[in-house]
Amino acid sequence: MNIAYLNGAFLPLADARISVLDRGFLFAEAIYEVAAVIDGRLIDSASHLARLERSVAAIDLPLPLPPAQIEAAQKELVRRNGVTQGLVYLQVTRGADITRDFLPPEGLEPTLFMFVQDKDFLNAPGARDGIAVATMADQRWARRDIKSTGLLAQVMAKRAASAAGAQEAWMVEDGFVTEGASSTAFILTDEGVVTRPYSRQVLAGCTGLALTALAQESGIAIVRRPFTVAEALAAHEAFIASASTLCQSVVRIDGQKIGDGRPGPVAMRLRELYIDFARRTAV
Amino acid sequence: MNIAYLNGAFLPLADARISVLDRGFLFAEAIYEVAAVIDGRLIDSASHLARLERSVAAIDLPLPLPPAQIEAAQKELVRRNGVTQGLVYLQVTRGADITRDFLPPEGLEPTLFMFVQDKDFLNAPGARDGIAVATMADQRWARRDIKSTGLLAQVMAKRAASAAGAQEAWMVEDGFVTEGASSTAFILTDEGVVTRPYSRQVLAGCTGLALTALAQESGIAIVRRPFTVAEALAAHEAFIASASTLCQSVVRIDGQKIGDGRPGPVAMRLRELYIDFARRTAV
Repeated sequence: MNIAYLNGAFLPLADARISVLDRGFLFAEAIYEVAAVIDGRLIDSASHLARLERSVAAIDLPLPLPPAQIEAAQKELVRRNGVTQGLVYLQVTRGADITRDFLPPEGLEPTLFMFVQDKDFLNAPGARDGIAVATMADQRWARRDIKSTGLLAQVMAKRAASAAGAQEAWMVEDGFVTEGASSTAFILTDEGVVTRPYSRQVLAGCTGLALTALAQESGIAIVRRPFTVAEALAAHEAFIASASTLCQSVVRIDGQKIGDGRPGPVAMRLRELYIDFARRTAV
Repeated sequence: MNIAYLNGAFLPLADARISVLDRGFLFAEAIYEVAAVIDGRLIDSASHLARLERSVAAIDLPLPLPPAQIEAAQKELVRRNGVTQGLVYLQVTRGADITRDFLPPEGLEPTLFMFVQDKDFLNAPGARDGIAVATMADQRWARRDIKSTGLLAQVMAKRAASAAGAQEAWMVEDGFVTEGASSTAFILTDEGVVTRPYSRQVLAGCTGLALTALAQESGIAIVRRPFTVAEALAAHEAFIASASTLCQSVVRIDGQKIGDGRPGPVAMRLRELYIDFARRTAV
């Protein structure tokens, strides 16, 4: 039985219910995080908790527990569910209020929800064969640095990508790729690994950040600048990073092969470095 | 006791709970509507139901009931709660699914939720005295024509407006006012009543649409074009329209008086025409 965490209690996921008046449901006034689990331990947890703190601060939402206690609850959830490899999803909302006023009343009790999923990301098909990406207009709001649950634009992008036979959408704005619908985007050119600098236009990806640090440690140049779809199509390699995929090669963009159409050596090397880092540092 | 509607059942609002796995909660993959009630009947119901149908179609979300049955449930809810004046809130989501995949699985059962609120909008302070508005950057996504629950940008705008002593935010993009955070924006110039044309940049306001039709019937010119903040500051009058305010004068924008700083005659006349229309046509 899948055990979830809701507002201090561990309970069967099927019994975890929230009020229809929760502002996470009515206004998407909520922040989320997804951290991966390897060998029964949390990957890169401090980085995810730091981003959680940045996101809630950006919308002036108090965390109902200090980060250390959140991490303890995540570990307890992993333990109770016996997760070896998988994901811990966490969501915090402004809480429930009967007024349904855009302006939240003072002093609402935040809602904190977590649940786990088993996921064999070490042996995912996309890890072995690479994935296809479809490009499309970035329709999201102006504060993509805030990891909010207002994800309808991403859902629509993923559906459009899927309809085009792709597993991920790369969103494009003013001619440049911003990022994937649920991942950070990278290409390999003669300059090195190119990825967009952090700003309000993109989410600061935890996995991507760790990946670039590992790349630099092993002598791979990282160039932080926006890149175009044309540059991506002409790149030696392309790849994505996220907590749920770690690092996966992009072998086709809009139906066109990248490089020889197979996972590239740099992406595969970075994936190995990341898995090694994850095993060494998981908590 | 407040009685709500949830997936076919009438139940106490306090007992109306949804799964934490509802995609309305996890992804804001949900559409909402707010219709006003006068004399115990629904105002402009066909217009709200038509917009609901447009919004759900835009995200390929099936309605769990035909519009006529939704309206019947709304009427039953109004009756059971004895609402004379107030609001009926309605939300439909993609439904609950354990995968938490951005890509929704086929065949999910949509969630349909409704509840009512008593609201004396005929005697609201803003109706008598007018309201203050604060302008700010429009941070919303690209599909504002879809009435989705991804409302965090609007919540943030309302909070910023409130901090500036205003009751509504007027959002500005490329130098032009798009609309209010939860209302349509109008100004009165020598040309007549100026309001932004419908496009993906704004929600097609039901109340605003009815208001402009009433204005034209009574010989007031309607000019559909974007206007700037400077134009609004120099206007003879400014006002907003929404289901929960009907029509209210804007007497200050960013602290500056509009006209003589009191509700203007055209806005007050349109408000009266709208209330008369509402009483005549409510169902």
